[in-house]
Amino acid sequence: MKLSARNVLKGKVKSIVTGMVNSEIVIELPGGVEMTSIITKTSAENLKLKEGSEVYAIVKASNVIIGTD
Amino acid sequence: MKLSARNVLKGKVKSIVTGMVNSEIVIELPGGVEMTSIITKTSAENLKLKEGSEVYAIVKASNVIIGTD
Amino acid sequence: MKLSARNVLKGKVKSIVTGMVNSEIVIELPGGVEMTSIITKTSAENLKLKEGSEVYAIVKASNVIIGTD
Amino acid sequence: MKLSARNVLKGKVKSIVTGMVNSEIVIELPGGVEMTSIITKTSAENLKLKEGSEVYAIVKASNVIIGTD
Amino acid sequence: MKLSARNVLKGKVKSIVTGMVNSEIVIELPGGVEMTSIITKTSAENLKLKEGSEVYAIVKASNVIIGTD
Amino acid sequence: MKLSARNVLKGKVKSIVTGMVNSEIVIELPGGVEMTSIITKTSAENLKLKEGSEVYAIVKASNVIIGTD
Repeated sequence: MKLSARNVLKGKVKSIVTGMVNSEIVIELPGGVEMTSIITKTSAENLKLKEGSEVYAIVKASNVIIGTD
Repeated sequence: MKLSARNVLKGKVKSIVTGMVNSEIVIELPGGVEMTSIITKTSAENLKLKEGSEVYAIVKASNVIIGTD
Repeated sequence: MKLSARNVLKGKVKSIVTGMVNSEIVIELPGGVEMTSIITKTSAENLKLKEGSEVYAIVKASNVIIGTD
Repeated sequence: MKLSARNVLKGKVKSIVTGMVNSEIVIELPGGVEMTSIITKTSAENLKLKEGSEVYAIVKASNVIIGTD
Repeated sequence: MKLSARNVLKGKVKSIVTGMVNSEIVIELPGGVEMTSIITKTSAENLKLKEGSEVYAIVKASNVIIGTD
Repeated sequence: MKLSARNVLKGKVKSIVTGMVNSEIVIELPGGVEMTSIITKTSAENLKLKEGSEVYAIVKASNVIIGTD
């Protein structure tokens, strides 16, 4: 599937914390930068996510805030 | 300011497209990956963004979707 | 690609309004219900969207508000 | 109340999973399509949601991603 | 309609900027604090928003980032 | 850090509910209005949030829905 979302970053699952409704997925991007995602526990199971899984972190452009020093 | 947002990625502004209400900001991360952000035109002006500006792309973890092949 | 997003609704593009930065895409779902999406103009072009295009409207569960009468 | 949100889809609650902070609400739309929403546990209680409750799934247009095959 | 959204702040429209797709609405809350909202131009027209209109600024709790000094 | 987010409201933490993945933070603004935020449990710990902490509730303008009576 092609997506309108402008940000699709490839990485590997580094760790997973599972709650009753949501799961926290930490993804390591090439170069060592980490991204964290909250998805439903059901989605984490449906995607069979585990440490080392190759994944994409997908972010809609309207959800990116910009900061400056 | 410290933020609860888990994803704060450092980069440089590569290009800006300015509309009547919103502006599209393309940010180049180290390694050449690009992120795109839509912010208000007023915010782009307030932050004095221009090509080459050093910025952070900030994303709340609940806004990160995960995809797998 | 498989997505963590829980809501993936199939439909057809009914109309497109193009701005300088964003485009408004109205999608007709089976049964006649409409959904509206705002994506970047660049994404609408990349996906080659036009009236009648078959598309999916994708929504992360954390972005669905519930209302009651 | 009238809302600026462009997407207001009527349905019935099919199932609820309750966590410590959030609840997952699965809504069945006419025709059998399902939508999933994550709201706070407190909101689910305030709205007195239970299986069979008539509800609206409300989504802001800027939160709808578009995908194509 | 009752909403799951936890944040519903009453105010008055202070100014409107209209683009081709989106409109920027600045709302003044009691005490003088301002909130800014981006909605579709069509929604602004449907709600007949104009300076002085009494409105609610509605925010889902999962969209509130926290910062500290 | 300066942020593109247009809505930055100062307040004090009134209460915290901690789940396994997320925490719910209720913030009291001057004048007694409350705002609720869902952030990750890890962020709440990193920011050392507790009752009485001075915080900012930060909301991107594209995440503000408008309602009218």
